[in-house]
Parts: sequence; structure tokens; C-alpha cells
Amino acid sequence: MGEEISSSRLIRALFCQSVDKTPVWIMRQAGRYLPEYRTLREKAGSFLMLCKTPDLASELTLQPIRRFDLDAAIIFSDILTIPDAMGLELCFEEGQGPYFKRPLKTLADIRALAPPHPETSLRYVCDAIKTVKRELGGTIPLIGFSGSPWTLACYMLEGKGSKTFTQIKRLMWEAPLEFELLITCLSQAVADYLNAQITAGVDVVMVFDTWGGILANSDYERATAEPLRQVLSKLKREELRRKIPNIIYAKGCGDHLAALAKMGWNAIGLDWMVDPSWARQIVGEKVALQGNLDPAVLYCKEACVKTEVQKVLDAFGPAPGYIFNLGHGIPPTVDPERVRFLVDAVHHFGVGENSGMGL
Amino acid sequence: MGEEISSSRLIRALFCQSVDKTPVWIMRQAGRYLPEYRTLREKAGSFLMLCKTPDLASELTLQPIRRFDLDAAIIFSDILTIPDAMGLELCFEEGQGPYFKRPLKTLADIRALAPPHPETSLRYVCDAIKTVKRELGGTIPLIGFSGSPWTLACYMLEGKGSKTFTQIKRLMWEAPLEFELLITCLSQAVADYLNAQITAGVDVVMVFDTWGGILANSDYERATAEPLRQVLSKLKREELRRKIPNIIYAKGCGDHLAALAKMGWNAIGLDWMVDPSWARQIVGEKVALQGNLDPAVLYCKEACVKTEVQKVLDAFGPAPGYIFNLGHGIPPTVDPERVRFLVDAVHHFGVGENSGMGL
Repeated sequence: MGEEISSSRLIRALFCQSVDKTPVWIMRQAGRYLPEYRTLREKAGSFLMLCKTPDLASELTLQPIRRFDLDAAIIFSDILTIPDAMGLELCFEEGQGPYFKRPLKTLADIRALAPPHPETSLRYVCDAIKTVKRELGGTIPLIGFSGSPWTLACYMLEGKGSKTFTQIKRLMWEAPLEFELLITCLSQAVADYLNAQITAGVDVVMVFDTWGGILANSDYERATAEPLRQVLSKLKREELRRKIPNIIYAKGCGDHLAALAKMGWNAIGLDWMVDPSWARQIVGEKVALQGNLDPAVLYCKEACVKTEVQKVLDAFGPAPGYIFNLGHGIPPTVDPERVRFLVDAVHHFGVGENSGMGL
Repeated sequence: MGEEISSSRLIRALFCQSVDKTPVWIMRQAGRYLPEYRTLREKAGSFLMLCKTPDLASELTLQPIRRFDLDAAIIFSDILTIPDAMGLELCFEEGQGPYFKRPLKTLADIRALAPPHPETSLRYVCDAIKTVKRELGGTIPLIGFSGSPWTLACYMLEGKGSKTFTQIKRLMWEAPLEFELLITCLSQAVADYLNAQITAGVDVVMVFDTWGGILANSDYERATAEPLRQVLSKLKREELRRKIPNIIYAKGCGDHLAALAKMGWNAIGLDWMVDPSWARQIVGEKVALQGNLDPAVLYCKEACVKTEVQKVLDAFGPAPGYIFNLGHGIPPTVDPERVRFLVDAVHHFGVGENSGMGL
């Protein structure tokens, strides 16, 4: 990581250091709400083709950066690339969520799994990262990411999105050995994949535990907390003497903030249901927090966006170790001009302006 | 309420009194997973016709009672009957969720609303209640219910189910006066409706705050906590010298247990994400708890159902003031034999058997 990147707002905030202005980026900032994205998507034919063509993935990563004053780029990709590389064949059909052509059907399917080699089967992501880093030229940090082991396992068993993910839960309860095998394999795969992204040049890694929140409290530890610890323990923290901070996005996991904070994540991404001041109390001063505006606010008029942004900034307070974001990915039908307003409002009303805190 | 009903397991548990065995009932216990339900539904043509024909609603209410050793009946109906009675016209189409033919579109639509008269436009529910009470003959209590003001408002603005319910949130943020008007009208309507059900004969009333969990922490108070308080304050607690306990089902509202306990509900229904022993700590000994098995357990083999039932019973502990239930409604594809096994397991392993606690 160059000097400029390591002193960028995002990296400083992730390490709980003071910043001149509150850093802001937006989950799914490269996506369908941008007309230039939709144009490229139409040409490419499929979402996965966009992910797998480094020049296109790079272009899409940069689109929101050109438009808005964002403090980070996030590589254009999907949380489900690992199972795709394991042969489950990820597909997207318009208007539906992602699905796998070959979901895991039997215990034998699970026993046959092995972590993919990111240098070969996920090389397209690494190539896209290298291209983006070249294009960014050290201006702002680039975030790499993966789904969490549990979240990947949810989709791999069910084959698609679900409200309940009954298949993976049955495996967990009825075949604990194979569940363990699957989740251990995925923990290794996620760590390998993130390490490959670090080698390719990302400045931050993020894990999306999108489905941790559907677990009964008594299942949380073995299903997602322990695998997340495994991932963390296998992450290279130093690569070419750069220190790469990490973020866990924990949707619906407000009850587990204390456990997540103890694991050693640099930052925890919160959904909009979590009370920011309560979260700060739970995680202490050494863990950064990221979030958590209700994405629905982006459908409101500017005056209302401004009020709600201020509420979130106030609730997180002037402490360092805060990154503004939505509490979930940006919805595809939002007006990009609202996003511009939002980003500028954060920079205007965040630290620096309000609190007088500077470097 | 007769002598038998007031000394029933459910009523005693709701008032935190000791019981001979842990009471158990199941959210949506009268529903699609029962073949006899599906037969009747085919004949009737539509779900709403079932609700609106007292003899059919009564028959459906009693179906699960005939099959299983349940400790309560719940009137066969829907959480959205109030908006239907307000003229929004509730519809159900096979394979889809409920929707309204005439959702609220303008501020003028909202200003024109008034609480319906349950004695006329919701009389069918009261008639069904009277029939069921006659049929039950004082054996087990009958639960009446409604959606919460916020949950009703969510559907009334959106017109159907949604992951985000953006329309009602926009109203809340951009037109606070009309939002207040709507939610006050619905609080009155819910209270009137539950009072009419009490007059008709129900022994317990329950409010489903199904969508409280999609609110940002900072919006929870005005959007659903205050309206719930309003409903409670308007409930008749005494009717013909019977004391009617009440239950709030608070999906995704683990963060708000303390607030809910303070409101004065007799019992709080928990989803399966909430840790039972933590919940008990928050709400104290004077509020009963209900829940919270992950419904997906019902897809597992008996041995696994047994283990998971025991885990839930252990987690809630031997204290009185506990009613076993799922953490959400029973899924429509569950095998009814699993339900039989579940109900019997609760009676076998709950208090009385395990702890030696009796009356």
C-alpha cells in the first residue's frame, strides 16, 4: 500500500485513526442503479460475463468513482464466485436472484469438495483488481470481498436464495460431520481467495455474512462465528509490508456484535436496524463501525435524505473509527442524483465540519 | 372465561403461573400443511372466502385441534382483515402473498380513512369466534388476533409484501403528519377489532408486529412502539369479569424487548434468532415468553426434532411464564406427523417431566 492509500480516509478510519472528513462508500455502488452500468450489461449479455471479463469488471468498478466523491472503490464481482469456481456454475436470470446449476445434493457431493485455486479458477477477479489498481493510480483504496463460509454454504445447498435456507439447516442438524467438512473447506477457500486478492493489490478485504442473521442464536457459533474466526486466522495481514484492514458485514447479527468484536475484525458493517450508539458501546473504541442508513431513504427528497444522514452521523458520534455506508446494498431503482447528494452530505456534515475534528 | 379455561395451561402460563406441562400451540397451526385444510380450500375457491364464512373458518380452526394435543386454538383468519374492511380489498392468489386491489396512493386517501366498525364489516370474524367457542365447549382457550398498526400500514401503502416497504417509510419520513394520522387510525381500529373479538368470546388476544423488524432503530418508537402502546391502552381487559391476556409477536425485534416488556404485554412472542435466556433476563419474571423453535427443524427427522425441542425447552428454563411455539408460522410443506411428534415432545420433555414442577 502506498503512502497515499495508507493515509486515506477509509484506511485511517478502519484503523480508528482521526480523519479530516467522514469516509463514505456504498455497498453495490457499482450496479444497476447507474445507467452506464445498464448499458454495459446489455452489451455483455450476462452479469457473470461482466464479472469474468477483467476489463469490463474494472470499468464497472470505476463508474461510480467517476461520478461521485467516494472514498473507496469495491471490485465489481459477486459474493458467490467461490462456489462457481468449485463447479456449481453460478447463473443469473433477469429479475431473479442468483442460482447454481449444480447445487450440492448429496453427502457425497460435499465430501468431494475442495477449495478452488484462486490463481487459476478465480484469476479473473485478480486480473480485474490489477487493472483497477492501475487505473486508480493510488487515489483511493480498493476493497476486495467474498461471501462468508456460512453464506456460501446457504446458497450451495439450496441452489438459490431462500427466506429460510432449510437445506443447509437440515445438513447442520442432521449431518454435523459433513456440515463441518463443508464449512471448513469454505473457510479455507474464503481465506485463500481473499489472500489472492491481497496479492493482486486490494487495500481492504471484506466478508459479507449476509445470512448469519437467519441462524437460531444457539447455532450461530458453530455455523458462522467459528468459520469467520478461521478465515481471519488464515488471512495474510502483511503483504509487501502493507497492512490490509478487514471488514465483516453482519446483516441481522446485532445480537452477536460482542462476539464479532472479539474476533479481531478491524471493522463491523451494521444493518440499519442496529442502534449505532449501542453498537459503539458493545464493540468499544478499537473496532471501527460502518453503516447504517436505511437504503429506503434514497427514495426520499433531498431535505429528507439530509435529515436522515445527519441522524446517522449524530448517532455514530464524532469518534474516529467510523465509515458511512448504507445498512444494505443500494436498491437498483434509486436515482443516481440522490447518491451524489448523499455522498456530498456525508462529507459536508460528517467530522471536520460538525465536530471540528481534523488531522 | 369459564373456570376450566382460566385454569388452562395457556392462560396460566400467560399470567406466569405454574403449569403441569409446558403449553404448546403453533403459529399458522390451521393452514396449508394440513391435507384437510387443502381439501376445504379447494372447495371454497379462495382463502378469503374461508375467512369470511364463519362455518368454514370455525371448521379450519378446529382441524389442528382434532389432530394434535394442542393447548390453544387460534381463530382462522388473516392479519390483514382490517384494511380489507376499510375498503382496500384483500386478495390472495395461489403462490403469491396477499395483496390489496386498492392500496393507499395519495395523502388524500389517508385523510379519508376511518376505523371500520367491527360489528358490521368484521362481523364474520366475530361470528366464527362464537361458533368455535361453542364447538370447543370450554376445553382449551381460543386466541383472537390482528396485525399491528405498523404492519397493517406497511401493506396498505405498498399494496403487497415487500422486502423493504419503501412506500410506508417514505410516508413516515416525508409526510409525518399523514403518517401519524394513518397510524393513529389503525391503532384505534386494531383495539376496536380486538375488543370485538373479546366480546365475541376469545380468551386471549395477540398482535402480530411482523414488520417491526425492518425499522431503523431510530424509527421504531414512533412507527410501532407508540402505536402498540395505544392499542394496549384501549384494550378491554375485563369483559364479563374475564381477564383476557394479550401477546405481542415481535419478529426481528430482539433489540426492543425491554421496550416491549415495559408496555405491559402479558407475553412476548420471540423469533428463533433471539437467545431465550437473554430474553428472560431482559423482560424479567413478570412477562411470559412464547417461542421460538426454528420452523426449519420440522423438516428434520424425529431424533433431530427431539434434540432441538429439548434445546429450546432448556434455554427457556423451568420458570413459569413460558409457552412453546415456533419462532415463525409453520411452513406449508411440513409433514403433519412431524407436528404431532413436536407437540408430544414438548409435553413429554417440558416442565412436569423434566423439572418435577407441578401445580
